[in-house]
Amino acid sequence: MTELPGEFELIARLAALFGPPPNGLGIGDDAATWPATGDTVQVATTDMLIEGIHFRLDWTSPEDLGWKALAVNLSDLAAMGATPGRALISIAVDAARRGLVLQVARGLQSLAERTGTRVVGGDTVRSPGPLVINVALVGEADPARLLRRDAARPGDLVGVTGCLGASSAALTLLSERPGPLDPAAAPLLAAHHRPLPRLVAGQLLASRGVRCAIDISDGLASEALHLARASGVGIEIDVGRLPLSPAAVRLLGERRSRELALTGGEDYELLFTFDPQLVDELASALAIDGGLTVLGEVTDQVPTGTAQFVEAGQPIELAERGYVAF
Amino acid sequence: MTELPGEFELIARLAALFGPPPNGLGIGDDAATWPATGDTVQVATTDMLIEGIHFRLDWTSPEDLGWKALAVNLSDLAAMGATPGRALISIAVDAARRGLVLQVARGLQSLAERTGTRVVGGDTVRSPGPLVINVALVGEADPARLLRRDAARPGDLVGVTGCLGASSAALTLLSERPGPLDPAAAPLLAAHHRPLPRLVAGQLLASRGVRCAIDISDGLASEALHLARASGVGIEIDVGRLPLSPAAVRLLGERRSRELALTGGEDYELLFTFDPQLVDELASALAIDGGLTVLGEVTDQVPTGTAQFVEAGQPIELAERGYVAF
Repeated sequence: MTELPGEFELIARLAALFGPPPNGLGIGDDAATWPATGDTVQVATTDMLIEGIHFRLDWTSPEDLGWKALAVNLSDLAAMGATPGRALISIAVDAARRGLVLQVARGLQSLAERTGTRVVGGDTVRSPGPLVINVALVGEADPARLLRRDAARPGDLVGVTGCLGASSAALTLLSERPGPLDPAAAPLLAAHHRPLPRLVAGQLLASRGVRCAIDISDGLASEALHLARASGVGIEIDVGRLPLSPAAVRLLGERRSRELALTGGEDYELLFTFDPQLVDELASALAIDGGLTVLGEVTDQVPTGTAQFVEAGQPIELAERGYVAF
Repeated sequence: MTELPGEFELIARLAALFGPPPNGLGIGDDAATWPATGDTVQVATTDMLIEGIHFRLDWTSPEDLGWKALAVNLSDLAAMGATPGRALISIAVDAARRGLVLQVARGLQSLAERTGTRVVGGDTVRSPGPLVINVALVGEADPARLLRRDAARPGDLVGVTGCLGASSAALTLLSERPGPLDPAAAPLLAAHHRPLPRLVAGQLLASRGVRCAIDISDGLASEALHLARASGVGIEIDVGRLPLSPAAVRLLGERRSRELALTGGEDYELLFTFDPQLVDELASALAIDGGLTVLGEVTDQVPTGTAQFVEAGQPIELAERGYVAF
């Protein structure tokens, strides 16, 4: 992820500077890969979280922060069909708050144990400003079964795991309603604080012949656009099929929940495209990790490099950072 | 490196939390290792640099910062006898200074090309506070020839590459003498801004039977103590043998230069111990990367887990963060 202004230009210039990755995947995909033991490739990714930008410690416990810092990286590996993995952790914090380091580490380790990730090293430094945590993660994959952003083909269906918008619904409730939250918000808070990366789903997709996937960190609309651009295809998504969070619909209404499902971000579900013949097999396989919702299709009817959202067969407009139609 | 208060306790607690590394090296050594292709092991390290703590952009150009961020990680690999390597880079900066990202990346890439390091991915994020750069680096080594911190044995000699105190002499001049510096400071500024990690020296040491090394990031006194503690030995170092920087002696005097050589930090030279029979062979081999200065010995005459500094045969005292005697 890159979130500075002019992100596409910046990524392109960095990619030009650092040169093409060893096997064609790297800057611009979810993770970088290079040859490893025997028939596998190493798959590596890194993410940095900054206090005040990506989290607030009055909304997120240090343990949840540690969990999430690892989860966002594991989600990148899931989107490649890779397995974890070894992790390197860097944490910067002011001396007065040094006790946070162990709390963050405990939360991170609880997800590491659950996913077979080993924390092998790291760095702890003083910071005069915000708490910063960086995770670098190395895993492995079968190079013949890597999930890539650039492998969508016209005629593919578009699928997604889990439900969308739960994490951003929690963030909405936390920011708009100070004080105790409705107990019905519990599943939303869990999705926001302790996302479960779809590692099993990613490996199932890879093993059943799916070749194109991305994880949803910035919202469905943004990630669908990434797939369309990387693959040079058009994607159509029916917003009537979005798998909304029941708790979000109950607390924020259906319209707001749809907006969040499209543009809210931090879902860490997998968005992927696949041969329509696989639909029953995938629906069955994914029952153990998120399930399958078919959202739309890859089609020549939509301009190359774009994602079109339709409701009841009619195109709708999405604003760059928000959902304006309905 | 850990630089928060109570660093030893914090590292011990983190090491207990994350569990023993796969092959006995990890948290507490210069880098972590795990099995890789064929007969090699992967060697991985990470370092985070924070504006205002580790660098100031009025003293350091963005290009030099990028070089240095990679150099400090490469130095960790050098201290393991490893070769680079793949790097993942994370940079946080406020939107108004986003142009710095490419400048930092250019400086980093110039050292990457020089050392055979490939930048394979990264993350760029907004930061409301200081610029932050994190590098995670994975390399390879022969597991039978790894350089470790815990392999010093009584009877070994203690050696060091290069000269000591040049980087901290530059920092002293920058902080104490605003305005243009004496042209004689050029080699000091080069050592401070563009340190050359001793990758060749590390591999030469490893190939010639040396087993114990550490890189000097926090100053000779601190690193000698790390070796003594990790190996369970006593180390004696003769301060009369310190390889001082001629430019530092000229600009700051011999006494000040010795203090900086002992406690100044950021030298990124290698400190190592070796069988005395190897001394001529190592001196010859290291001629191409830093040379060899014999500083002292590993000896039962010094209490286990301590480093003693002597001048003209008499012990001298070092303050915790500075050099007080002479």
